[in-house]
Amino acid sequence: MEEKIIITFPDGTQKEFPKGISAYDIASSISKRLADDVLVAEVNGKLIDLSAPVNENSQITFHKFDSEKGKEVYWHTTSHLMAQAIEELFPGAKFGVGPPIKDGFYYDIDSETKFGEKEIALIEAKMKEIAKRGLKPVRQELPRLEAIKYFQSERKDPYKVEILETIASNEDTVSLYHQGGFTDLCRGPHLPNTDKIKSVKLMSVSGSYWRGDENRQILQRIYGVSYPKQKELDEHLNRIEEAKKRDNRKIGHELELFMISPSVGGGLPIWLPNGSIIRGELENFLKDEQVKRGYSPVYTPHIAKVDLYRQSGHYPYYKESQFPPLEFEDETGKSEQYMLKPMNCPHHHQIYSFKPRSYRDLPVKLAEFGTVYRYEQSGELNGLIRVRGFTQDDSHIYCTQEQLLDEVCDVIELTQFVFSTLGFKDFKTRLSFRDKENKSKYGGEDDMWEKAEADVKAAADKMGIDYYIGIGEASFYGPKLDFMVMDAIGREWQLGTVQIDYVMPERFDLTYTGSDGQKHRPVIIHRAPFGSLERFTGILIENYAGDFPLWLCPVQAVVLPITDAVKDYAVEIFNELKKNNIRVELDDRNEKVGYKIREAEHRKIPYMLVVGEKEKQENLISVREHKKGDTGKTELKELIEKLKLKIIQKL
Amino acid sequence: MEEKIIITFPDGTQKEFPKGISAYDIASSISKRLADDVLVAEVNGKLIDLSAPVNENSQITFHKFDSEKGKEVYWHTTSHLMAQAIEELFPGAKFGVGPPIKDGFYYDIDSETKFGEKEIALIEAKMKEIAKRGLKPVRQELPRLEAIKYFQSERKDPYKVEILETIASNEDTVSLYHQGGFTDLCRGPHLPNTDKIKSVKLMSVSGSYWRGDENRQILQRIYGVSYPKQKELDEHLNRIEEAKKRDNRKIGHELELFMISPSVGGGLPIWLPNGSIIRGELENFLKDEQVKRGYSPVYTPHIAKVDLYRQSGHYPYYKESQFPPLEFEDETGKSEQYMLKPMNCPHHHQIYSFKPRSYRDLPVKLAEFGTVYRYEQSGELNGLIRVRGFTQDDSHIYCTQEQLLDEVCDVIELTQFVFSTLGFKDFKTRLSFRDKENKSKYGGEDDMWEKAEADVKAAADKMGIDYYIGIGEASFYGPKLDFMVMDAIGREWQLGTVQIDYVMPERFDLTYTGSDGQKHRPVIIHRAPFGSLERFTGILIENYAGDFPLWLCPVQAVVLPITDAVKDYAVEIFNELKKNNIRVELDDRNEKVGYKIREAEHRKIPYMLVVGEKEKQENLISVREHKKGDTGKTELKELIEKLKLKIIQKL
Repeated sequence: MEEKIIITFPDGTQKEFPKGISAYDIASSISKRLADDVLVAEVNGKLIDLSAPVNENSQITFHKFDSEKGKEVYWHTTSHLMAQAIEELFPGAKFGVGPPIKDGFYYDIDSETKFGEKEIALIEAKMKEIAKRGLKPVRQELPRLEAIKYFQSERKDPYKVEILETIASNEDTVSLYHQGGFTDLCRGPHLPNTDKIKSVKLMSVSGSYWRGDENRQILQRIYGVSYPKQKELDEHLNRIEEAKKRDNRKIGHELELFMISPSVGGGLPIWLPNGSIIRGELENFLKDEQVKRGYSPVYTPHIAKVDLYRQSGHYPYYKESQFPPLEFEDETGKSEQYMLKPMNCPHHHQIYSFKPRSYRDLPVKLAEFGTVYRYEQSGELNGLIRVRGFTQDDSHIYCTQEQLLDEVCDVIELTQFVFSTLGFKDFKTRLSFRDKENKSKYGGEDDMWEKAEADVKAAADKMGIDYYIGIGEASFYGPKLDFMVMDAIGREWQLGTVQIDYVMPERFDLTYTGSDGQKHRPVIIHRAPFGSLERFTGILIENYAGDFPLWLCPVQAVVLPITDAVKDYAVEIFNELKKNNIRVELDDRNEKVGYKIREAEHRKIPYMLVVGEKEKQENLISVREHKKGDTGKTELKELIEKLKLKIIQKL
Repeated sequence: MEEKIIITFPDGTQKEFPKGISAYDIASSISKRLADDVLVAEVNGKLIDLSAPVNENSQITFHKFDSEKGKEVYWHTTSHLMAQAIEELFPGAKFGVGPPIKDGFYYDIDSETKFGEKEIALIEAKMKEIAKRGLKPVRQELPRLEAIKYFQSERKDPYKVEILETIASNEDTVSLYHQGGFTDLCRGPHLPNTDKIKSVKLMSVSGSYWRGDENRQILQRIYGVSYPKQKELDEHLNRIEEAKKRDNRKIGHELELFMISPSVGGGLPIWLPNGSIIRGELENFLKDEQVKRGYSPVYTPHIAKVDLYRQSGHYPYYKESQFPPLEFEDETGKSEQYMLKPMNCPHHHQIYSFKPRSYRDLPVKLAEFGTVYRYEQSGELNGLIRVRGFTQDDSHIYCTQEQLLDEVCDVIELTQFVFSTLGFKDFKTRLSFRDKENKSKYGGEDDMWEKAEADVKAAADKMGIDYYIGIGEASFYGPKLDFMVMDAIGREWQLGTVQIDYVMPERFDLTYTGSDGQKHRPVIIHRAPFGSLERFTGILIENYAGDFPLWLCPVQAVVLPITDAVKDYAVEIFNELKKNNIRVELDDRNEKVGYKIREAEHRKIPYMLVVGEKEKQENLISVREHKKGDTGKTELKELIEKLKLKIIQKL
């Protein structure tokens, strides 16, 4: 009698199948469409080839290209495909490692051929040709020692032999994947067929030391990416082009927003006047919102004694990501150690402790645009987006357990308001909870965690936000909410965070007197809607590609007189706009108006106010809007009202 | 025939006198009043006793108690008087040093008697008695070796012997002063008569190591002060009392303006919510003024590579007053040295150099509330007034030589406006020029200095300010203007500075292209009307004794319902004030209204709005003003208008 197994699908439904059925056949039993689209199966948490048999009762999930895991397998197989193409074109090539990465894959190759533009084109063409052959990657498991022999004698590949002798030395059995005449050492899994790979683009070639060791061979690393549809690949390539155009470093320089000076140091941006206007507007916007919501601004120093961070536990445990302490002897010979503050929290806890607190004083909501310093490796730095010194729009809310729900709701509301005002309409929210199977990773008591997670969930529900739960994503001191926004070209950025903290109140012995006359611990909410002014502004630059909304524009309008004869009229307009707090310039240089317009367009100034004899006589202004061109004539008063309204509405 | 000498007086007049005439007789020849008031004479720049003969043609200046030098001599003689009194009361006492200091004098004494309250009273009485004896201090010059013998055998004073053998070891001749039976080793000069000392107060006793060496004897240091009139002494003592009451640390704590946390570090003030409101208002006030005046706000990091300060010349030359560099190796093993910025200038110069500048772009006016860190010895620290981390309201104006006059005028105007807005109506201005006799102390060329000093003077004249010229008070890089304000209790504070700088444009190779198409150096004006937000706020606290003008008050009004029954009415008032951006609190605790008023007075809240049944029925508010008491009933609307007007007017 045929043995049966029970398969459970993600939606909880169950179905019976003969033991040993392939994952592919299970998919087919659901729908042809699914069987066509599925790339890999996840059985009881383990990814397997679609052709692999399922032999026991299992949970099964099918991954298509739209999932992270689907993409990984897709790109992994494409890297094998590339190796196969290279082997066919340039016999004798040897292969290092070839993993999938964030946006595609790479393979490290040892070949006598230097891969230039011509070779890359050949490889790409060959890959497409092989893909169409419809090869099925076949898995073979064998003892490690046999595999060593195979790579020594058959494939004569010293790199794979080295991997088997070193990295894989603890394994008894290893797996190979055969694909036509090409064989690779590989954990898998792989696509069911190379013909799934419909479009391929090899992006670049660079040198890479074998196993990252600069004393060993330099291999040629070829990066590539592939998609199930040419259209998707084209979109991907467009996104890269678009991202290059929007690069915060490029636009930051062109629009004179910020600079990095080697004399000051990498990762330490200097905000130029134009960028400072944007930052100032962002700060004022949030300051006003915070005053309305009962936050108290504070200012704290940028250094503190090292012991403060020993108390918080940030030193020496996070030493690697911090600037080292600054040490000296004071005038009495006593040794002192100060640190550049890597966060503002411990400073704010000092303020909470300044005086005894009663339940009547809570919540205490301290807010600071606090500049902190963290050490990032120089290779990681990126304009305003990844820096070594940044200003957090930081706040710590000290509240009672009973107030937590309302306070979290208020913070979510503020964060949503900030995002939507800044043009991020789409965002995902993750409720980051602890992993109950792994309690030792977290501080605080069980009942507190349960209450806090329930409160976070209740707050998210109450605010009607779309969220998903990330088990094991909590910080060690409490659950949190993480917000991921989508920018104008579809990239995701993690922005804003709301963290609930039960640990620091203990470490800093923070208390309040309850209505019962007893001492209690407050809960702390850490929150920062922008995250950091630097990173947020960097992302804004890329999101808007420098075409900021009017209220953020460093220069909101420029008056362009056509001739010297109308200069008085131009000055009149300029002064009137200035009086109305509109950031306006007057370009009265002796240049053709066309030249001035091109320059203003290049500077992305939203309103160009052109005035000549005709405009003067009519007492009107010809308005030209950035990227839109001529939008007709208007009266000055009307224009001012329009601009002021847009600015107030933050459009 | 009697030889004659010519004496020139400060006003330039000259008069002939017989050679050898005493300084006192010269004073007498002018007026009896002068002769009565003069304490010491300055002959060709050297202070001498009034009894001393003048033997050559000389410039002479007479000092009375109202001059610094007059006070010094007065207090110096008083310290001798104290030593004499101690010797008479407690025979066997030995004496260390006894100089005049800023507000009086001290003497270090080695005596078996422990000087307590009783002894201090005895000494004070004895001093007054001796003063009335009308003793004339008599100067005696003698070879140093004879003086040693004298102090060994006659006065048996090992301290004076040690001074003669060490500190004075290079002198051939030294001087003693005899005063009745008391003799001291002393350079002089002294008052003509002890009866000039009309009032004396001994302030305190403390321990002090002989010659500051903790391995040597502890002497008793008695501090005192004296005045020609009892009334002046009383005023001095009142000022001290008043200053204690106004101490920024005391009021800062009581009004919860700032705190110093030992965990963060000395001299690193943390601004509490109340203090942050004041600072925020000051910042916004100046920001608004700066926008009107065409300044560009910028933000720069708090650290920079040490080489930047080597370039500016601030390191290592001013190392002693800076925190030491922070050193580490980056991920490539390269050694890096960063410094906490001790000033913002080099950062701003980077911004100036960001792009080529034309004469059309100048002046470039960069402004930043830039926090800098400097090392002060812990004994020097004082609340907000003397700190290790402070925020300058810094600006650098890069202009052409031709623009300098106008720019300096504008800066003077701004500084005056800031001072007068903040209640400092009285201030002195010093034009600090270089000493032409000592040119090597200064950078820059002669003609630049002459032009700059002329411009500074022309600006001061044009602005109609009362100034005096301080020769040799310039900084090494250019002339400056220093402003000294007088506070509510008559103390002087140096605030605000305007410095002209020819040296940094060279060091940082700053240029602009002139209308002639050639490269030129801009001039830099450094300016900071507040100086530092910390110090300025500290002085404001002491000046206002915490009774800030309404626009700066952390809490501007408090609503005090008399009974629970009128709480709704109180809430209505509270909400309406809040809506009008008035910082208001509602004190609806179950306490007697008298108790709430006392607390509000203690917190120096300017407006207490008391409402009971009667007020509710009449739809009025009973207003109580801080320190003034009940000021009658008013309508809410009227009150709001009044408060808003005062706030706008910064009253």
